[in-house]
Amino acid sequence: MNNPFFSPKGVAVIGASQDAHKLGYGVIRNLLQYRYKGEIYPVNKSAYEIQGLTCFESVEKVPDPVDLAIIIVPANAVAGVLEECGERGIKYVIIVTGGFSETGPEGKKMEEELIEVAGRYDIRMVGPNCIGTIDTHTPVNTTFVVGMPEPGEIGFISHSGAMVAAIIDWAEGSGIGFSRIASLGNQIDVNEIEMTKTIAKDPKTKVITAYIEGVSNGLEFMETAIEAALKKPFLMLKGGHGESGAKAVASHTGALAGSSEAYHAAFKHCGIQEAHTVEEMFEWARAMAWQPLPKGKRVAVLTNAGGPAILAVDALEQAGLEIARLTQKTKDYLTSRLPKAASVNNPVDVLAGSGPATYTLALEALLTDEHVDAVVVIQAPQDWFLPVSLAEVVGEVAGAHQKPVITSIMGRASVGDALKILQKRRIPNVAFPERSASVLSAMIARREWLESDKAPESVNIEINLKTASDAVAQKDWTELLKLYGVRFPQQRIASTLSEAIDEASKINGGVAMKLVSDEVSHKSDIGGVKLNLKGETAIRKAWEEIAEGTVKAGAGMKGVLLQEMISSAREVIVGMVRDEQFGATVLFGTGGTDVELIKDVHTAIAPKNREQVQRLINATKAGVKLKGWRNLPPGDSEALTGVILALSKIAYDFPEITELEINPLCVLPKGEGVYALDVRGDMNRKF
Amino acid sequence: MNNPFFSPKGVAVIGASQDAHKLGYGVIRNLLQYRYKGEIYPVNKSAYEIQGLTCFESVEKVPDPVDLAIIIVPANAVAGVLEECGERGIKYVIIVTGGFSETGPEGKKMEEELIEVAGRYDIRMVGPNCIGTIDTHTPVNTTFVVGMPEPGEIGFISHSGAMVAAIIDWAEGSGIGFSRIASLGNQIDVNEIEMTKTIAKDPKTKVITAYIEGVSNGLEFMETAIEAALKKPFLMLKGGHGESGAKAVASHTGALAGSSEAYHAAFKHCGIQEAHTVEEMFEWARAMAWQPLPKGKRVAVLTNAGGPAILAVDALEQAGLEIARLTQKTKDYLTSRLPKAASVNNPVDVLAGSGPATYTLALEALLTDEHVDAVVVIQAPQDWFLPVSLAEVVGEVAGAHQKPVITSIMGRASVGDALKILQKRRIPNVAFPERSASVLSAMIARREWLESDKAPESVNIEINLKTASDAVAQKDWTELLKLYGVRFPQQRIASTLSEAIDEASKINGGVAMKLVSDEVSHKSDIGGVKLNLKGETAIRKAWEEIAEGTVKAGAGMKGVLLQEMISSAREVIVGMVRDEQFGATVLFGTGGTDVELIKDVHTAIAPKNREQVQRLINATKAGVKLKGWRNLPPGDSEALTGVILALSKIAYDFPEITELEINPLCVLPKGEGVYALDVRGDMNRKF
Repeated sequence: MNNPFFSPKGVAVIGASQDAHKLGYGVIRNLLQYRYKGEIYPVNKSAYEIQGLTCFESVEKVPDPVDLAIIIVPANAVAGVLEECGERGIKYVIIVTGGFSETGPEGKKMEEELIEVAGRYDIRMVGPNCIGTIDTHTPVNTTFVVGMPEPGEIGFISHSGAMVAAIIDWAEGSGIGFSRIASLGNQIDVNEIEMTKTIAKDPKTKVITAYIEGVSNGLEFMETAIEAALKKPFLMLKGGHGESGAKAVASHTGALAGSSEAYHAAFKHCGIQEAHTVEEMFEWARAMAWQPLPKGKRVAVLTNAGGPAILAVDALEQAGLEIARLTQKTKDYLTSRLPKAASVNNPVDVLAGSGPATYTLALEALLTDEHVDAVVVIQAPQDWFLPVSLAEVVGEVAGAHQKPVITSIMGRASVGDALKILQKRRIPNVAFPERSASVLSAMIARREWLESDKAPESVNIEINLKTASDAVAQKDWTELLKLYGVRFPQQRIASTLSEAIDEASKINGGVAMKLVSDEVSHKSDIGGVKLNLKGETAIRKAWEEIAEGTVKAGAGMKGVLLQEMISSAREVIVGMVRDEQFGATVLFGTGGTDVELIKDVHTAIAPKNREQVQRLINATKAGVKLKGWRNLPPGDSEALTGVILALSKIAYDFPEITELEINPLCVLPKGEGVYALDVRGDMNRKF
Repeated sequence: MNNPFFSPKGVAVIGASQDAHKLGYGVIRNLLQYRYKGEIYPVNKSAYEIQGLTCFESVEKVPDPVDLAIIIVPANAVAGVLEECGERGIKYVIIVTGGFSETGPEGKKMEEELIEVAGRYDIRMVGPNCIGTIDTHTPVNTTFVVGMPEPGEIGFISHSGAMVAAIIDWAEGSGIGFSRIASLGNQIDVNEIEMTKTIAKDPKTKVITAYIEGVSNGLEFMETAIEAALKKPFLMLKGGHGESGAKAVASHTGALAGSSEAYHAAFKHCGIQEAHTVEEMFEWARAMAWQPLPKGKRVAVLTNAGGPAILAVDALEQAGLEIARLTQKTKDYLTSRLPKAASVNNPVDVLAGSGPATYTLALEALLTDEHVDAVVVIQAPQDWFLPVSLAEVVGEVAGAHQKPVITSIMGRASVGDALKILQKRRIPNVAFPERSASVLSAMIARREWLESDKAPESVNIEINLKTASDAVAQKDWTELLKLYGVRFPQQRIASTLSEAIDEASKINGGVAMKLVSDEVSHKSDIGGVKLNLKGETAIRKAWEEIAEGTVKAGAGMKGVLLQEMISSAREVIVGMVRDEQFGATVLFGTGGTDVELIKDVHTAIAPKNREQVQRLINATKAGVKLKGWRNLPPGDSEALTGVILALSKIAYDFPEITELEINPLCVLPKGEGVYALDVRGDMNRKF
């Protein structure tokens, strides 16, 4: 289907200019210079002709065909112009003009006017405060930014126009080609969600990349993203993860923040892969656009020099990839073909004197080896043959196999021609071989996500919602969790010391005493938790110490909770946190009092099935330990999974609960279940 | 002093060639083309003239001045040629020829012959199997590799000739200039230690960089490195950290491996900073050569666009830097000078319409602000002014202050001229702003190391060495540690069950029972540790279970150790490991049975004073917890430091001990000391 933002039949440029220093000049120049083949109509009251094109007094005078308008008039004139577009029957508009909501409430008001006008005429808008759109295949470049990216298969969506400009400038001559680029600005209409859908549908786009600073609607974004990522790799650079960054984003876009953990969780959930730097994102994108995904993690390194191969191998191992063990057949073959002193173990070193023919034979052998999933081909600068020859043979051999090949024809000055051939042959090249590791591991992560079961059966928990609602109303989190099947140790409440002594005597074995107070959320911080108490003296002493600690903390003491001691070498934390943007998230990790220190807590979008829970558990060290660690037998994963699903279900059943946390949850050996030792919750928290 | 490897008066090229495909051609070409001003003497029996130079029949015929020979004859002819050099009185020789020890024992034998000849004539050798040396200031390029680096202030030492070739090719046009480069090859004479000394002494070199695959002698290397690093930043890329990488190094250079942890510890000890990639190393090097070190961690970001600034701020925070809080004075000033909609909080956004003058005023204000230690200046591509103008003003303003400035004039295609000006003005530029974070944090690490007390008073522990020797001879690690002042819980050995019952009754409170067996090193793995036993029944049951576990593990049981139970929320591991290369190292971190899972163990060169111990402790999470964590009071750091120093002293006193580990060591609250609960050791282990 024709989308006038990327393939318009005719474009009116309202605010076109003869002055080369004006944006309205740049837009016309780009339409002309970058070979837009449709009609171009400059609109400017005071000019007859702009850059050789007939100029129109107003948009209403513009003849057919015209289906897109680019508006670059002062902010206070935009609404009027938009109205004229409506009258003229133009349904797609890019508003380049800035000075709207990003400058304050007055600008915000003007945006509301634009929305009103657009609504009346059924106009779709990109912007305002954006630099527009590019489609290299149409081709059309609606921006005023100098430069047109090479045609390619990477789509790029950006909340920042500056990032678009910088990336176009940077990509020139790098072999990184684009299909479509969209700068969204204040996105009062078309936002990152809709643009993701548009780019995902574009047949010329093989990989979606994005720089975003927030999402317009977390749940809707996730729904769109997962659908897009199922079709195409979806790579992301998210701005504003840190504290100051988030602040800067807030003042920049005013988007709903959402927590950093929730963003990471949401991206992971949707198969979006987060890059750390701009260069990394596009290095991944290029490799995914050009090469098949590896079937496994076993990488072979083919080189003409030792040092660079060592750096590659170090980086590959560091990134969790495996150095392939070649089959005897491959080694025998290589022994028969390579120089005597060559290394036929992986890394395969053909030595400095070998040329493209030797590389050809070795690469063919490696790609044929069933123990090899991917090959990194390194060429250190040499004087015997032209790097272009290597580029040609590597391209040809790689093209005949279904395994990814990444080259590192090292250097810069002497390798320009070779890089052009690699680009034509669709072989990604990295300037230094250690950078191949990040690319290959991103490709493997993509394959693993695609292969993961994304829609296994949801687990249902039968529950009496009425009783549960009562527990919620009373903030009785323990009762609520019990209703969802979570087990607690035997326990009693005591509000006086004598009651405590009496109740403790009814509990078998050692007793834990915990402060009950409305004002204290981390009890152990103020000495409000005493463990393994036996006998009256111990109970008395513990009570007194807790009372003293509570007074010191300036809090009130309602009494104590007496619990059966559960001793377990395995304490985990499980929790539910409702995110401003992405709704219910669930966290899991190593628990106890060191949670913040150990930092082994991972967050996921609240899971609906066992497979999702398993992935969350597996991402943590607590998960490793759960499988049995040293002399510790495997823990009861089954029961743990049940608790995580229960928290998740509670999150969906009671949207008013904003936080619910069990820490510690004691995981006993397989078959013996889990015990929740302490619970805290929060409701209707303001974001 | 004149060093003929870098500033020869005359160079004989033995094996010079007329054939452009031969190395002996390339060497002559480079000497000529890269403007070596001394005498060049091609030596080749069968030519009269090579590239316009008179050719000599043999090196003995070469006239004065000649103080360096480059040898490129077949391997089996090198010894003879070296002998001739000796006769001619040439004391410095670069042997380019390969085919020596790297190919096997025969080659090794030929190397020994070279060493013998060189010894007789007092000849110093670089190589064999290397590509030689470069000095851009002399200038001289003794290699056969196409390209000559730009003159600059970075020295580069490499075990890999291919890395040298690749880096020369890559650095061309990047603004990264070199002073001296040395490829060391098989280094049968001049090795990385001597070369470090040479480069450290070179007045033209401001930063030392190195790619090494191992060190020739760990202790000597450290001594040299620390001296070099005190004078100049010393940056390192170490090849062969991973398992496969180490194997590849072994087959590549045959160097003594040394453990990865020990390398990291040794580098840290010496102030060597390890980079992850080639690009990172040279980005750091350039910044350190050009800019002053920041006095603190507070960074200001100055930008003309929001998105790129957000990426910078995210990366800076991630790297542990702080986003400076500007003074009110600075904010007031900026408010008065910047456009109305500009942001005067950090990041300072001058907005897209601002030009070099606005940048000038803002940068001057930021560099004057006493809350700012460094500034990152971002320019997203724009159309209003030439990037060169920004480069000029930033260079000029930065030059007037003693704070580091890093620019990110973003892009590639449009910024070439600006980058040349920045290079002249000594302002490092990164293509995308997020990369400034790694550069600034490396600079801060350098400053912190320089400021750290490197020679505080050593701590001495008075000890009866005779008694200690007896304990070592009997492998009685507990006794040994007690002699060095380490405290153990009350404990008794029992070899029968009835003995165990009897001895346990003499210990106050709960008892821990631990297997005594020569064959089991991780007792708890086979159920050989039982805790908190009280009364005869518990002792009996524990004995039986331990006996059963030992039988199952196929080991012999000598008896059990009965220990007073020490309960502590803080279990750490401390240990000593003797490294093949770097000698005694000491480790510290979170202990208990989860050591390998939690991975909180750091290694340091065995410390001799409290400051070094403190740095080791501070590098770990266990160290954070030691200062008091949640309700846990601060631990007895004093006593812990004593134990670490004791282990270190033992390491120096008894070189035959290869490993000694206390895990867990229980750290009680401040003033209450520490208890070693379990010890294991090893002697005379073969590396």
